[in-house]
Amino acid sequence: VIPEPIQSESAELVLAFLAEAGDDVVSGEAISDKLGLTRAAVWKHVEALRGQGYRIDAVATRGYRLVAVPDRLRALELRPLLNTHDVGQVLHCFESLGSTSDHAKALAEDGAGHGEVVVTEAQTMGRGRRGRGWVMAPGRNVAFSVVLRPVGLPTARAPELTLVASLAVCDALRRAGVDAGIKWPNDILVNGRKIAGILTELAAEPDQVHWVVVGVGVNVNAREEDFPPELLGQATSVFLERGQVAPRALFLAACLTLLEEWYDRHAEDGFGPIREAWTVRSVTLGREVAVQLDGREVVGTAEALDDTGALLVRTAAGLERITSGDVALLRPRG
Amino acid sequence: VIPEPIQSESAELVLAFLAEAGDDVVSGEAISDKLGLTRAAVWKHVEALRGQGYRIDAVATRGYRLVAVPDRLRALELRPLLNTHDVGQVLHCFESLGSTSDHAKALAEDGAGHGEVVVTEAQTMGRGRRGRGWVMAPGRNVAFSVVLRPVGLPTARAPELTLVASLAVCDALRRAGVDAGIKWPNDILVNGRKIAGILTELAAEPDQVHWVVVGVGVNVNAREEDFPPELLGQATSVFLERGQVAPRALFLAACLTLLEEWYDRHAEDGFGPIREAWTVRSVTLGREVAVQLDGREVVGTAEALDDTGALLVRTAAGLERITSGDVALLRPRG
Repeated sequence: VIPEPIQSESAELVLAFLAEAGDDVVSGEAISDKLGLTRAAVWKHVEALRGQGYRIDAVATRGYRLVAVPDRLRALELRPLLNTHDVGQVLHCFESLGSTSDHAKALAEDGAGHGEVVVTEAQTMGRGRRGRGWVMAPGRNVAFSVVLRPVGLPTARAPELTLVASLAVCDALRRAGVDAGIKWPNDILVNGRKIAGILTELAAEPDQVHWVVVGVGVNVNAREEDFPPELLGQATSVFLERGQVAPRALFLAACLTLLEEWYDRHAEDGFGPIREAWTVRSVTLGREVAVQLDGREVVGTAEALDDTGALLVRTAAGLERITSGDVALLRPRG
Repeated sequence: VIPEPIQSESAELVLAFLAEAGDDVVSGEAISDKLGLTRAAVWKHVEALRGQGYRIDAVATRGYRLVAVPDRLRALELRPLLNTHDVGQVLHCFESLGSTSDHAKALAEDGAGHGEVVVTEAQTMGRGRRGRGWVMAPGRNVAFSVVLRPVGLPTARAPELTLVASLAVCDALRRAGVDAGIKWPNDILVNGRKIAGILTELAAEPDQVHWVVVGVGVNVNAREEDFPPELLGQATSVFLERGQVAPRALFLAACLTLLEEWYDRHAEDGFGPIREAWTVRSVTLGREVAVQLDGREVVGTAEALDDTGALLVRTAAGLERITSGDVALLRPRG
């Protein structure tokens, strides 16, 4: 049983102060001065944090040092790690939830603001694209959804936001030490195996997006036994690639921070820089692909991303512009 | 106070039988034979219908004739008039509702099927495009929303459905005897005054529409005193244009039937025929227009609808492709 989160704002401030210092030792006096707490209160909050699973060393005569944070995804762990102005500033954290995107969509309908985030440890009805399921071992992975409210974005340009989100997740995975690449439109692969999926949903008028919910599922610390047998060989995780457990809160905070960076870039400079960044991270371009459209298959070479985010595939019959459908990467020739 | 609707399915069948006969007299014997009812039961149902406001004449020794239906929008009135396979086959009818589109969106989220319709006599929080209000005199006009589930429609093509809906409403108004035309993208005008508005909202993934809710408000029998003073001179109704009250149930049934016809045409033959039909009904093309985009104004001649439904405007600087924004028709030159 995971204990209830600390309710005290002061404890959170003490933690943020320790987290900011990184590996440095912080004196109890500095904390009490800075936060206007008595030394006894500082000690009490440190004890409470230890009770929550934080490892805080007391260094004789010098002060406190944060050594390890518990492997949990809650505001207490996430907020000190976030470097954003909007994304994740409001966090809705759950132990278990049907689907983070369903919850985020309900929040968006009720007026949730730009950047509100829903996170869960366990997802009982996770969804992938086109109503497919998304299975995830609880407590070892990261599942979150973000409410975005793009200003004046025409609905026809919504696919660009899927690519924005895939850049953020790809870059967060690279920071976590794995060689991630993007399969069009929004799967993240490592060595040809799926490590993350992104589901973008939106509410709109035809000429204007009301809100977008980006749902992200990443296999962070999943073991082989966490995957259903039929996915073995097709799926992987940061843990499986690197052989060591990754700190999930750090990973999630990186995802949110990068999402805000790429989102802001898109809002300011449009699709051009997104397209460029996507192109160099792509594992689709230059490859032979088979695309399943409704009722037919397009086989050819994935040549480029066009200026609307569609995939251009060179076939025997000419250039096909793909806006939807499932893409399979065929084996390299030769 | 409007009486409760008749619950009896037999009464509805008797009504449908009379409605089908139009101006013809139907013998009580024919009704009782066809529906397997006693003559006494037929008489009882006719009495019940009269109690509901139906005028049914008894023609000595010959039978019954339906002379007038009450001016109400409920399944009992609407169903016999519908000529559709999907649209309006499930009707959700209300005396009063905040917004038919809000209700339809909630139904769609809960799995409502293609063609389910929400109708109300009074709308307390009617909405227009971009969150604007839509004011409507209760009991005299028509407000409804339709859930559509287009199969495999890419989200970028959603604007086409707004034009599909505007064709249906425009044609229904023409059948009602007024010279309606379409102002891009989806206002219906008569003699330069607004008579109907359409609000299209949707839920989607970037590459695929989940559902669309088309909300329609039409000034059918509104009087001058029903409009707020600031709209006088800008708004009109079928009643104001023709000088006589229009049967609302007939008008609504025509809207739904035509919506299904144009929707099916679009699903089968794509945007080509829609674009053609829209072009000949347009009151925008060939006119000088001023388009308010975010922060700037585009002034020029509305030249054509392009093959995505965008408006092409010829300006001094060249051709502008307009996908959103408010279009004002400027006075004809000369």
